Amino acid sequence: MTVDTNKKKVVLVIGAGDATGGAIARRFAREGYVACVTRRSADKLQPLVDSIRQAGGEAHGFASDARKEEDVVALIEEIENDIGPIEAFVFNIGANVPCSILEETARKYFKIWEMACFSGFLNAREVAIRMASRKRGTILFTGATAGLRGASHFAAFAGAKHGIRALAQSMARELGPMNIHVAHVVVDGAIDTDFIRTQFPERYALKSEDGILDPEHIAENYWYLHRQPRDAWTFELDLRPWNERW
Amino acid sequence: MTVDTNKKKVVLVIGAGDATGGAIARRFAREGYVACVTRRSADKLQPLVDSIRQAGGEAHGFASDARKEEDVVALIEEIENDIGPIEAFVFNIGANVPCSILEETARKYFKIWEMACFSGFLNAREVAIRMASRKRGTILFTGATAGLRGASHFAAFAGAKHGIRALAQSMARELGPMNIHVAHVVVDGAIDTDFIRTQFPERYALKSEDGILDPEHIAENYWYLHRQPRDAWTFELDLRPWNERW
Amino acid sequence: MTVDTNKKKVVLVIGAGDATGGAIARRFAREGYVACVTRRSADKLQPLVDSIRQAGGEAHGFASDARKEEDVVALIEEIENDIGPIEAFVFNIGANVPCSILEETARKYFKIWEMACFSGFLNAREVAIRMASRKRGTILFTGATAGLRGASHFAAFAGAKHGIRALAQSMARELGPMNIHVAHVVVDGAIDTDFIRTQFPERYALKSEDGILDPEHIAENYWYLHRQPRDAWTFELDLRPWNERW
Amino acid sequence: MTVDTNKKKVVLVIGAGDATGGAIARRFAREGYVACVTRRSADKLQPLVDSIRQAGGEAHGFASDARKEEDVVALIEEIENDIGPIEAFVFNIGANVPCSILEETARKYFKIWEMACFSGFLNAREVAIRMASRKRGTILFTGATAGLRGASHFAAFAGAKHGIRALAQSMARELGPMNIHVAHVVVDGAIDTDFIRTQFPERYALKSEDGILDPEHIAENYWYLHRQPRDAWTFELDLRPWNERW
Repeated sequence: MTVDTNKKKVVLVIGAGDATGGAIARRFAREGYVACVTRRSADKLQPLVDSIRQAGGEAHGFASDARKEEDVVALIEEIENDIGPIEAFVFNIGANVPCSILEETARKYFKIWEMACFSGFLNAREVAIRMASRKRGTILFTGATAGLRGASHFAAFAGAKHGIRALAQSMARELGPMNIHVAHVVVDGAIDTDFIRTQFPERYALKSEDGILDPEHIAENYWYLHRQPRDAWTFELDLRPWNERW
Repeated sequence: MTVDTNKKKVVLVIGAGDATGGAIARRFAREGYVACVTRRSADKLQPLVDSIRQAGGEAHGFASDARKEEDVVALIEEIENDIGPIEAFVFNIGANVPCSILEETARKYFKIWEMACFSGFLNAREVAIRMASRKRGTILFTGATAGLRGASHFAAFAGAKHGIRALAQSMARELGPMNIHVAHVVVDGAIDTDFIRTQFPERYALKSEDGILDPEHIAENYWYLHRQPRDAWTFELDLRPWNERW
Repeated sequence: MTVDTNKKKVVLVIGAGDATGGAIARRFAREGYVACVTRRSADKLQPLVDSIRQAGGEAHGFASDARKEEDVVALIEEIENDIGPIEAFVFNIGANVPCSILEETARKYFKIWEMACFSGFLNAREVAIRMASRKRGTILFTGATAGLRGASHFAAFAGAKHGIRALAQSMARELGPMNIHVAHVVVDGAIDTDFIRTQFPERYALKSEDGILDPEHIAENYWYLHRQPRDAWTFELDLRPWNERW
Repeated sequence: MTVDTNKKKVVLVIGAGDATGGAIARRFAREGYVACVTRRSADKLQPLVDSIRQAGGEAHGFASDARKEEDVVALIEEIENDIGPIEAFVFNIGANVPCSILEETARKYFKIWEMACFSGFLNAREVAIRMASRKRGTILFTGATAGLRGASHFAAFAGAKHGIRALAQSMARELGPMNIHVAHVVVDGAIDTDFIRTQFPERYALKSEDGILDPEHIAENYWYLHRQPRDAWTFELDLRPWNERW
């Protein structure tokens, strides 16, 4: 894989700390995109950055608090100035913390929204401004079934995910005619992560029969969406294991 | 109309500053409910309180910043201790401020959510805790079409309204089996208000042919939902003028 | 109750054989509407007609195969000519017969659609033509959760109910501006009927705690929809017992 | 391209008369699938069959009335016995004929449903029975925005498309756990066809700026869906041009 440094193309993945974000970064890097990946503390990004570089790709890790406007503005500025134009943007921060509405605290309700929705707005807006000036780009949001329906004990998470979906729809309708492809991926099911492995072992056992989502397979869809020709863009697709009840 | 002070029943309307909130308060007051109405500054509530009292009802106005947890907790505490059990709760704060996503500020995006969604969570949770202990009550949210789809230039408002709908759904699913009726009213169309009259005069002109929503008619639906027997509860209904395009 | 025979108003209920259809007919009859009720064989309608008459109302039973265009056209013609203008129309035929898709026969798939969807089109169209010429009327469809989602083993019923909802939406959008109120009621849960009593006794046992829908309560919503002022019409509302999972 | 005749894999496209169906058949044929294509009269299929063969693929055209159960059963039987197992099935018959509900005839309403929904059921069921016995296969339906909402003047088409979506959902939920991937593609926009070119020339003029859907690009999504690993299956995706209003 060779990267033409004269026209580096950047994929920016906000929330690359988890398996999905990392897989998306690697998928785009394999195609020659410079992977810019963020999470709150940069040190935890090093393994991802290293793995991309070892595979011959280019990657940069950034410590960035996605909820702080100054941080976000500075991050986008730095990437655009020092590395290259952000051609693809992925917002991938979740915060799936269930709780009875009778016990939900204001602090937690707020934090879940701040992480999983507000930071999506901040980062996507800042990137959209650059893309709009270039009339080009792809903006992808990781969604969840909670973005479509509010289940019992999921008021906070569903609220944030509904908010992200509203943001994605609104941006798609405004920015589509500016040649910016905005899409929303509804992930419905458990993902093959350490969290599921350690916290939901029975669920994880379904892995042997493909009953949990492989992050590499999720990532393939992000790449696919980015590559769609503009006469046939997808706004939304869902992803779930074959044997998932829904 | 006589109110048995031994068993006063309270309707609490958060955001009674506008035509709809006021009409809902008056509708319940006509049936003997004590109307507790709030907005940020109490003085503007006086005309509403006066009108209810003049009609023989009981009403109390409260200055309450619906976004501040301490204010909310204190308000509910005061009403429950000093006036009576909140049997019906209405959250009616909107914040319909359109803006291009390219120009939306973090401050405004946050404020719209804080007003139109977060304060709904704070107040509804606090009331739900009381209702859950009594295994009885009605919780009603004023929604909008923006709660169902994110239109161009409405990312912030749609995000907040999607969040309120997710909250309502999640609460309905958790609290229904506790005998608490949670419902969401989707108002789709212009309401007969000073705002529409002065800002959208052509729209307001439709009033003569019933082309804008009468707040009294909206209010009737809240009363209707509150009165539904529990074997046939509605979670969601929409309201729009006969000649509205949708 | 007195009925001014100079301006008789008719409610026509297609599929009045079950508890819900009968309750709707009685509800409108109580308000002075002449209840015209149909099912395939008229003799089974007699108890309903008798009960309305005994309560002082006016009712007429019609044997009508709702799936046959000639029958439908003749029925509407007869009612409009001999009894009075149809002011409210209710389509209430269901056909909830689950089956694995692997075993569903063409005959059954077709019949379920013919009964639960095609006959809705035939009757509603024929009535709509009259209402459009008068610029007045209400058209109500009984829907089901199967109209919103296709569950396993419900391809045929879901197909028919989705079709009815599409019909209702399409008619609402075309006929609303002609002052005709079209609405769709989503009944989600078991109804208090002989069928549920004999076939699902455990379900029926929930009746003691209001866990199944009372047809009289369902009917109230049809009347309510018919009475809504036209500046605030509802297109869709759902009805389910307080303790129903959804 | 070489086809191993010992394990021929068949893609069956019902309704391959239009641009989209033809493109899907060619796309699968390029990957070594034997393309079995149908429409009511076989002669019109010859150019498609020829083009696949000239490209080195294998194709067979069948005259089949998709609405007749005997025809459908015989067709599937013949293909499975004489050619190979149907690994991928595509239902692609539409019937977009707008009409006021006040003028819609029973005959046309029925025919639109029969073509665009009933024949989908007949063919998909017959194929599903085979796939279920093999625990393997892909079933794809071409949907439309009319499957999601009923617009004015589209009661018949929306009814049929809602019915197909209900069928797809119901089948996905039942057959997914049998390792059969069922998906529904929502095509939202004008497709580059002779029909659009001759009937909607202004619309067709958008082609120069990618404003109408290229059938080859639509087809790519069918192939993509067929290739998804089963831990991350998509049930539904939408496709629309970048500058389409929605």
